[in-house]
Amino acid sequence: MTCLLPGGFAAAGVASGIKPDGRLDLALVAVTTGPPATAAAVFTENLSVAAPVVLSRAHLLASDAQVRAVILNSGCANAATGDEGVRAAALMADTTARHLRAEPEQVLVCSTGPIGHQLPPRPLESGIPAACAALESSEEALARAARAIMTTDRREKLASASLASGPQVTGIAKGAGMIAPNMASATMLAVLMTDAIVSAPDLQAALDHAVDHTFNRLTIDGCMSTNDTVILLASGVSGIAAGAVELVEGVTVVCADLAHQMAADAEGGTKVVHVRVTGAADDASALKGARAVAESLLVKCSWYGEDPNWGRVVSALGAAGVLFDQSAVLVAYGPEVVCRDGMPVDFDHEVVASYLALPEFELNCDLGLGGGAAEILSADLTHAYVDENMGHS
Amino acid sequence: MTCLLPGGFAAAGVASGIKPDGRLDLALVAVTTGPPATAAAVFTENLSVAAPVVLSRAHLLASDAQVRAVILNSGCANAATGDEGVRAAALMADTTARHLRAEPEQVLVCSTGPIGHQLPPRPLESGIPAACAALESSEEALARAARAIMTTDRREKLASASLASGPQVTGIAKGAGMIAPNMASATMLAVLMTDAIVSAPDLQAALDHAVDHTFNRLTIDGCMSTNDTVILLASGVSGIAAGAVELVEGVTVVCADLAHQMAADAEGGTKVVHVRVTGAADDASALKGARAVAESLLVKCSWYGEDPNWGRVVSALGAAGVLFDQSAVLVAYGPEVVCRDGMPVDFDHEVVASYLALPEFELNCDLGLGGGAAEILSADLTHAYVDENMGHS
Repeated sequence: MTCLLPGGFAAAGVASGIKPDGRLDLALVAVTTGPPATAAAVFTENLSVAAPVVLSRAHLLASDAQVRAVILNSGCANAATGDEGVRAAALMADTTARHLRAEPEQVLVCSTGPIGHQLPPRPLESGIPAACAALESSEEALARAARAIMTTDRREKLASASLASGPQVTGIAKGAGMIAPNMASATMLAVLMTDAIVSAPDLQAALDHAVDHTFNRLTIDGCMSTNDTVILLASGVSGIAAGAVELVEGVTVVCADLAHQMAADAEGGTKVVHVRVTGAADDASALKGARAVAESLLVKCSWYGEDPNWGRVVSALGAAGVLFDQSAVLVAYGPEVVCRDGMPVDFDHEVVASYLALPEFELNCDLGLGGGAAEILSADLTHAYVDENMGHS
Repeated sequence: MTCLLPGGFAAAGVASGIKPDGRLDLALVAVTTGPPATAAAVFTENLSVAAPVVLSRAHLLASDAQVRAVILNSGCANAATGDEGVRAAALMADTTARHLRAEPEQVLVCSTGPIGHQLPPRPLESGIPAACAALESSEEALARAARAIMTTDRREKLASASLASGPQVTGIAKGAGMIAPNMASATMLAVLMTDAIVSAPDLQAALDHAVDHTFNRLTIDGCMSTNDTVILLASGVSGIAAGAVELVEGVTVVCADLAHQMAADAEGGTKVVHVRVTGAADDASALKGARAVAESLLVKCSWYGEDPNWGRVVSALGAAGVLFDQSAVLVAYGPEVVCRDGMPVDFDHEVVASYLALPEFELNCDLGLGGGAAEILSADLTHAYVDENMGHS
């Protein structure tokens, strides 16, 4: 998959040797000429926070959100690494800045991989200059950058949208397991770029809205990560000041596309499921109910087995902590209603079975109480998920 | 396994035909002579609540906590069954009461099994009289009752304790998967009996304390059930008024024993894990932290793989929503420290590996902040859990 790089940006992905098997493991996204980009970012809310997140937060403040580059590595999360880890993250920024003739605080850093291991210095010493030298304003270079941040991902993730006024929004991301609400995944990373002219506050507002409506409504296994980071850079090279509404829409479209790619690439997942709750007392209740269903292990196992076990859905909704009337609830797989007024419906088992055999489907729950509605994107719980996560760290 | 029946009680377990394969599926616990027992109960907090729970709540109130018998079936949860389900539960109580010459409201009802199916009337019509006729004050009869409430359980669960002043406390239980905080399991049922003389308020207080410290600190898959019920009956036949403290202790010991048996029989589980959090700001924070660790899918998979992946533990603690300082946390598998001050410790991998190979072990987390401590009992997430729960309902 390829996507157009917005004006002003270049990208690179190289194999530095952090991953011992020689796969791409170091990515760089940079504005190589002119002034640095305006930047916005959303970081993990986990109190166990990795060194690169600590450093990037500080750099964003120190640079007044003026960012020259983002350097990202896979193969090591640089988390639970203490002061040595912070020094390693700072070294990544310093080395990148030196080769791009930028200030260190104009470089943001992201890491993903196993927790509790120090970053090996050698690969970074040779890899960062190589990545700076490999920077290209090409679709291929961006695709290599997307591949260089993969861990358990099976596919690289890129998405793009054009604003009505002309500028482009393009993003790369990684993330598969451990994706939970509130910017919380075993490392969900995304870097978005636009060539629109945007002020830092408008850029942050657009990113906050997009993250809240996309990545924060994706749950794979409910686990929160130490490293999650979403960064949005605006080069301004198009010369066009994007409208606030089109910017929010464009950034949200790209984030939604990337979130969907993550759901489709969930660790061990075989199904993408849209859990929709309507008829809730309010939108917040609908969201809470949808999340409870999407995070129920029993429900997730039933998706894997293509089993229309709506009893588990009703049970999860009843335990969600929201206004609920068991005699008013409706459950449908896509258009096929299996439970109405809290009671079994005599549904066509063949029709439901062939619907549940689809790789992507909707689980629709109506609480029959009000106008609140929300959707959570999720995946099934499978043997392969257990396989991927039981192994040695 | 057998346990002594406290004075005044009789039990029975019969095969009524609710389960099509002829296994035991109907259990009865009763006080056959003298006045009815004083009763206390704790029910599921799920708002999707099964008919027998609705009925039993009402009967406990209507009888002023004077209970002659508890009738329990497996093979059908009688949940999501509407008015017809409530009538079926009432029929169970009525039929039992008629055969035991009691008032219907002196009979409590419990059901466990798949959701969304009506109870078949035929098996109950013949099975309840058979259970009443089979009532015996023997260890064997109690063991049969314990077997008759099993669903995915691999073993029947019984436990017993003697109070210092003489009376006995004995309980039977079932429950394996779907066990979560707040009396919430895909049907965790327990019936406890004592021959002590106890007032209804003291009995309820003892049960509330015991449930809070045992069943509510057991989590298998975090899912809440529609049917969970714990009932405690006091016949008074010993003629001894138990002291409040010894009663609380005795009931808690029996509940803890039953909860441990449930953890050991977790759906697909291969490990019983004691997650202990110390050094928290307060006990409530410790409990919240321990629960977050015990409910992390990634942590549960690592137990299955016997992988000392403490990074996931630290990440779960950091996301638990409690006061947390990543530079102060210590993680140990039993006595073996693997992370101190949030950093890796150079531990002996062979020693830790052989510890994690045990069928039961401790995961000790110290937050280094205060005096708060708590323990959660849990189990691992395995291929067999997925197998048991992906199948058709």
